[in-house]
Amino acid sequence: MKFVLAPDSFKESMTALHVANSMERGLRRVFPDCEIVKVPMADGGEGTVQSLVDATGGRIINVEVMGPLQTSVQAEFGLLGDGKTAVIEMASASGIAHTSLKNRNPLFTTTYGTGELIKHALDLGVLKIIIGLGGSATNDGGQGMACALGVKFTDPNGDMVGLGGGHLHTIADIDTRGIDPRIAKTEFIVACDVTNPLIGPDGASTVFGPQKGATPEMVEMLDRNLNIYAEKINACLGISVAAVPGAGAAGGLGAGLLAFTSAQLQRGIDIVINFTGLSEKIIGADAVFTGEGGIDYQTKFGKTPYGVAQVTKKVSPHIPVIALAGAIGEGIESLYDENFTAIFGIMRQACPLNQALKEGENNVAFTIENIARLFALGINNT
Amino acid sequence: MKFVLAPDSFKESMTALHVANSMERGLRRVFPDCEIVKVPMADGGEGTVQSLVDATGGRIINVEVMGPLQTSVQAEFGLLGDGKTAVIEMASASGIAHTSLKNRNPLFTTTYGTGELIKHALDLGVLKIIIGLGGSATNDGGQGMACALGVKFTDPNGDMVGLGGGHLHTIADIDTRGIDPRIAKTEFIVACDVTNPLIGPDGASTVFGPQKGATPEMVEMLDRNLNIYAEKINACLGISVAAVPGAGAAGGLGAGLLAFTSAQLQRGIDIVINFTGLSEKIIGADAVFTGEGGIDYQTKFGKTPYGVAQVTKKVSPHIPVIALAGAIGEGIESLYDENFTAIFGIMRQACPLNQALKEGENNVAFTIENIARLFALGINNT
Repeated sequence: MKFVLAPDSFKESMTALHVANSMERGLRRVFPDCEIVKVPMADGGEGTVQSLVDATGGRIINVEVMGPLQTSVQAEFGLLGDGKTAVIEMASASGIAHTSLKNRNPLFTTTYGTGELIKHALDLGVLKIIIGLGGSATNDGGQGMACALGVKFTDPNGDMVGLGGGHLHTIADIDTRGIDPRIAKTEFIVACDVTNPLIGPDGASTVFGPQKGATPEMVEMLDRNLNIYAEKINACLGISVAAVPGAGAAGGLGAGLLAFTSAQLQRGIDIVINFTGLSEKIIGADAVFTGEGGIDYQTKFGKTPYGVAQVTKKVSPHIPVIALAGAIGEGIESLYDENFTAIFGIMRQACPLNQALKEGENNVAFTIENIARLFALGINNT
Repeated sequence: MKFVLAPDSFKESMTALHVANSMERGLRRVFPDCEIVKVPMADGGEGTVQSLVDATGGRIINVEVMGPLQTSVQAEFGLLGDGKTAVIEMASASGIAHTSLKNRNPLFTTTYGTGELIKHALDLGVLKIIIGLGGSATNDGGQGMACALGVKFTDPNGDMVGLGGGHLHTIADIDTRGIDPRIAKTEFIVACDVTNPLIGPDGASTVFGPQKGATPEMVEMLDRNLNIYAEKINACLGISVAAVPGAGAAGGLGAGLLAFTSAQLQRGIDIVINFTGLSEKIIGADAVFTGEGGIDYQTKFGKTPYGVAQVTKKVSPHIPVIALAGAIGEGIESLYDENFTAIFGIMRQACPLNQALKEGENNVAFTIENIARLFALGINNT
């Protein structure tokens, strides 16, 4: 028997690798000698660095950078096992978790620290940088990141424009001559699961500004400022970013990456599938196990278990895909049409969430053991 | 495909029939045309009347009888589909649930109401009575039941002995001439899952007295009284009940039934298996599904899922037995050696118990649907 274990993390309970290890433990109780291929997964959101590092035998690097509130924060990025690819979650440097409810202010928050992470990665000699865009505290169009990389934003007096979405309307000129020369030689792959444009009713400020602390008046100002920012980028660099789907991701960091790097925006799960080599690993499997802390109707909008189910279907429509979850929400029936064979909850009893989070590893092992016991009856999947 | 659905009730959530119906609902989503045989089960404890009535197409009969505290209570018993067999849970008339923590007093509590239930059943013309012994509030050796059936207990002055375990030491004579003549013509089958004798360190008073409100002094008195009671039964009826395994069940009601009726003590689950015809129904099944609110290391001491697993093994060791539970406790690994193929929890997420109890039916349907989806891959169970 060959089993591929390709779960996402179970948030606040287990990393994807821990989930895969627990799955292995349960399977080995039934099939001690089976072939097991563990592929810790992620979808470009939180946990992507950890999973890709675990999947490729890479390492995590801790650095101090400027946080979203322009104070120093501890951040991290991943160097993959190939030594040539870095993985950055922008949230590690510039995420909402670095702010409290009280001091969330997207006029002021900056992606400068994300730019610093990119520079730290370049210092290690990488040729590719994967950047995940989820969880930002910012609405600066990636201006801060660009500053960190050497781009100069000046006002009509030739003075430097301040950091943060609230200053972008003062930009008169953008000078990219001082940009770190390694940027041009580096491949940027941006994990982006939203299609919002930079500005307008579906833009970064209007859709995501409020959750970052923007009042209606601030939203209006931020949207106007990003509009001016996009116009100046177009005028100075000849690049039109305003309407590109995904440009509005992470407070417009999508637009900034498009403007100042060679960024290609891709679905996060597709990037992870590609870098983990999941397709090749699935070949010849008797079953693929995936899972995530929560599975519900949103799973099919690009979450890891969905991506795993789709890749498996491409490899062979006969390989069953079985998903485990700590919490199974409404509307999952539609997943059965998306190549999910079966979906199981891992809870052993009614209990408070904090207890459930603690028992995650044992519960995964227990549940998969019992699924394996059904497989041991002899399932024909051909 | 043929599936046999033989669950116990999930206490405080679903009757066994509700569980079986929910199982059917989930299975039909995958196998719309499969053969389904529903056998609501029980183990002789709470829910046995409901399950046997549901399994045989019988009915529940409500009557007013004397409760354990010698006041009137509403009780019920079952008339099975054959019209010739009654099922009584002694707890319905004489159970601990009819007392509050404050007024539990086994010197005083009586099984008189259980005797009344027997008479009500005889009035319907039954030839067999199944009596379940769990959950008693009494420690009277079945004296109350015997009184209700016409047995006379008199003291040295020829006066009637009072009801309750606290009066048994005053018995001078037992006169059975007035006993209901139908008793002798009726088969009594007693569901009894304990092997405690009537008296001594493993006897009714010592082991079960405290949970019925007996202080250490009361336990001593009750044990002494049951000893005298057994001696008088021996002297007047020529029957020795004191040391019979199970005589100590339900505060000695086991002994009373042995003394005054033709009672045979049997394991509850065996009685239910016999009356539901489970063995025959399992023949040719592709899988047997069972379950109970809680499954743990105690399950193998005669609980329903264990009984179902054992019967299935006798019918064919190739038929998988799959158990569902709301709460899966510790030590269940040993069940895999007892013909349990697999065990699944039904919870979809961490939540308070009262929510879990409410969602039971949907959760059973969901879980079994996903198990069925694995079966649909084509399990070879031959």
